[in-house]
Amino acid sequence: MDENEKRLQEKFAQLKTYLDKGDKKRFRKTYLDMHFYDQSTFYLTLDKPERLSLYSLLEPDEMGDMFDTIEDDLPEIPEFLKEMDLDFAAEMLNDMYDDNAADVLEHLDKADVDRFLGQMPRADANNLRGLLHYDTETAGGIMTTDYVRFHEEETAGNAINDLRSFAETAETIYYLYVLDNHDDLVGVMSLRDLIMLNPEDTLGEKMNSDVITVNVDADQEEVAKVFRDYEFLAVPVVDHANQMVGIVTVDDVIEVIDDESLQDYSGLAGVSVDETDQDNPLKAASKRLPWLITLLLLSMITATLINHYEGLLAEASILAVFISTITGTAGNAGTQSLAVAVRRLAVEEIDRHEFFKLIGKELLTGFITGVVTGISVTLLVGLWKHNFILGMVIGLAMCAAITVANLAGSLIPMLMSSFGFDPAVASGPFISTLSDLTSVLIYFSIAGLFMQSFVRM
Amino acid sequence: MDENEKRLQEKFAQLKTYLDKGDKKRFRKTYLDMHFYDQSTFYLTLDKPERLSLYSLLEPDEMGDMFDTIEDDLPEIPEFLKEMDLDFAAEMLNDMYDDNAADVLEHLDKADVDRFLGQMPRADANNLRGLLHYDTETAGGIMTTDYVRFHEEETAGNAINDLRSFAETAETIYYLYVLDNHDDLVGVMSLRDLIMLNPEDTLGEKMNSDVITVNVDADQEEVAKVFRDYEFLAVPVVDHANQMVGIVTVDDVIEVIDDESLQDYSGLAGVSVDETDQDNPLKAASKRLPWLITLLLLSMITATLINHYEGLLAEASILAVFISTITGTAGNAGTQSLAVAVRRLAVEEIDRHEFFKLIGKELLTGFITGVVTGISVTLLVGLWKHNFILGMVIGLAMCAAITVANLAGSLIPMLMSSFGFDPAVASGPFISTLSDLTSVLIYFSIAGLFMQSFVRM
Repeated sequence: MDENEKRLQEKFAQLKTYLDKGDKKRFRKTYLDMHFYDQSTFYLTLDKPERLSLYSLLEPDEMGDMFDTIEDDLPEIPEFLKEMDLDFAAEMLNDMYDDNAADVLEHLDKADVDRFLGQMPRADANNLRGLLHYDTETAGGIMTTDYVRFHEEETAGNAINDLRSFAETAETIYYLYVLDNHDDLVGVMSLRDLIMLNPEDTLGEKMNSDVITVNVDADQEEVAKVFRDYEFLAVPVVDHANQMVGIVTVDDVIEVIDDESLQDYSGLAGVSVDETDQDNPLKAASKRLPWLITLLLLSMITATLINHYEGLLAEASILAVFISTITGTAGNAGTQSLAVAVRRLAVEEIDRHEFFKLIGKELLTGFITGVVTGISVTLLVGLWKHNFILGMVIGLAMCAAITVANLAGSLIPMLMSSFGFDPAVASGPFISTLSDLTSVLIYFSIAGLFMQSFVRM
Repeated sequence: MDENEKRLQEKFAQLKTYLDKGDKKRFRKTYLDMHFYDQSTFYLTLDKPERLSLYSLLEPDEMGDMFDTIEDDLPEIPEFLKEMDLDFAAEMLNDMYDDNAADVLEHLDKADVDRFLGQMPRADANNLRGLLHYDTETAGGIMTTDYVRFHEEETAGNAINDLRSFAETAETIYYLYVLDNHDDLVGVMSLRDLIMLNPEDTLGEKMNSDVITVNVDADQEEVAKVFRDYEFLAVPVVDHANQMVGIVTVDDVIEVIDDESLQDYSGLAGVSVDETDQDNPLKAASKRLPWLITLLLLSMITATLINHYEGLLAEASILAVFISTITGTAGNAGTQSLAVAVRRLAVEEIDRHEFFKLIGKELLTGFITGVVTGISVTLLVGLWKHNFILGMVIGLAMCAAITVANLAGSLIPMLMSSFGFDPAVASGPFISTLSDLTSVLIYFSIAGLFMQSFVRM
């Protein structure tokens, strides 16, 4: 535990004493002096009676500031909202940034959403309802409508003055969006540039009119890419008529990047690795079993295949010795190829022409890898068993099995992607189990061909 | 190709014509109107003669703005710098944000670094030299020293005026850092809060004095966590005497998060998945082979183990049928457990007490998973082969192999982490190849015990 954390723990202990004693003044002073995130960390340590007294000591907008930083997918959120007075909860939601309020509402039943929205001024409720319509993983799903807009004829001096009123509600005041008479977005200006202007300059003269926007339906990955490339703090979101409907801010994009990378990682591992639930072995097992059992069934097909070659095995039991070497190595190669393909699909669109080029390259990569690995294993087995024909059989099988596994590792995610599925779902375990099957088939076919030559022992 | 991209391509074509014709005025107008990132995209499409004429049309600071957005680990960067005039390059580096300049210099030979720094004013050169001292993956390695600082007695009105001078050089002017008479960091204020103040308020009265800082040696992952939690746009970096030495800005943190997630993903896959080089099959193969060959050697140990049981196999060749089912399923389970452990280690510190608790939980998770999978396979084999004793042998072996694989999957990264290695290096392929070995050992030991009972065929 470092210094920061220790100090925080002491503050939390103090806050709990004030809360128990109902010492409103001291509690509010200490609590409101903390960062919103620390407030939310404190809030999450409380039990229900403590939370209820907290609600009585704070104003809805103060609760809203804290709720803005709370993770919206915590399973307790609906409970928290329901234990508040209805007015209090509705006012708090209304005081939050609208993107965060919408994220919270998304996790409630429709009936509860209607209850809360029913308590809000109609315009605000409609605004939130609008946000709830968008898919959560699109620009619309992560944007806020609380942004700063000015008319292009506005002067810099007036704009700075007016910013004060926006500072109360806008999620960021560091970018000003400039609209023309038709309310079309025609420019953007950073606050940094604004304070450099002469007070009588108009925004229209000095704004940057090369505005990078994202479409309201754009996938959140695409939005993240704009932030990565241009290093913006916020990006305007436009609808199909090119009208501005909101902005996405960088804090939400960090969340998107984290979520997407967690999804990719979970996909590759064949298990959801988010941290909740993992502390309960029963729940953890229940998360892992579906994939395991599915893949067990797939591997039973491999078993029936080996069973089919039982005659061959009975004649040359030495073949059994190398089954796991071949399936294992091909599986490893397939996993590598899968990872490379999934990652590539995450950063670029691939058209039909590109598709065949990439598959060709991967096939060649697999072949080179296979040849090198095959020669290695030929030598290893040849030297060990003093039987280079056996070595060559294993080496040939290895080379072919790796080439096929590499092909599968890139072909499957690319096919999934072109049929509109998330390629990250094709897990490493799936590819290696699938490649067990092809590897075994290749291995025994080749072994069968050379049977007479290597069985000399 | 979407609208934005099409427009950009047209602009690029136009720019190339101006460049060829040496039309300085038109070129500069179009080029300087573009976003810095688009400028860098254009720059990267140029060949050497084109780049040389570009340098003659632009000022060093204009080049610097563009170079600020270029990825510093592009292999061409040293070449770019060396083809510029020495003065021009040095001035450009000096005009860049110092964190970006240091990142660029890091990829050059020591001699070249000295050459460029020798052309700069001594104070600037020393500043960059200081930044180059920090480990690249620490707060010091990603921070900038171009930040906004004020004395606590400064009034809001003066501060806003003075900000204009900072806006030329500071990487962000959206946070003001407040120092006392000893130059100690005593508070922070956002520009948002500043513009809400009365001109005569002093910063000391109104600042936020609960400043969250990161240590200059802190790992970049830790820095990223502060941004995730607190949703800051920048965080101050302090040295061991608690003196402020710089700030880290959110754009650099996005890069950190991307890099770290790419590392984790590459680790799990057992191959570096960054996109460069992957287009050349030879290079791609050379990236994948080291792990594959290493693991091949490990899997040869498994082969010798199976070889050791050749007598058993000769007697009951049916045993060979299920080798890949058992090794494959245990490997899958081990990969899942590895992924969960690596991810957990990425987000929390684990002490000794926690260590054993987690291992215990993972063991239990593995056992539950093993029991369910074991029962499934017992039934499948029993029904298929009409031999429930054989089924039970396979089921028992599966259960034990999965439990051990789960244990290895969590124990190995945790041990690596406690010995100071990056746990993400323990790849899925490594765990599954290792678990092939233990699985085979378990399988044949159990089969040996029950040999007499199931061989009835």
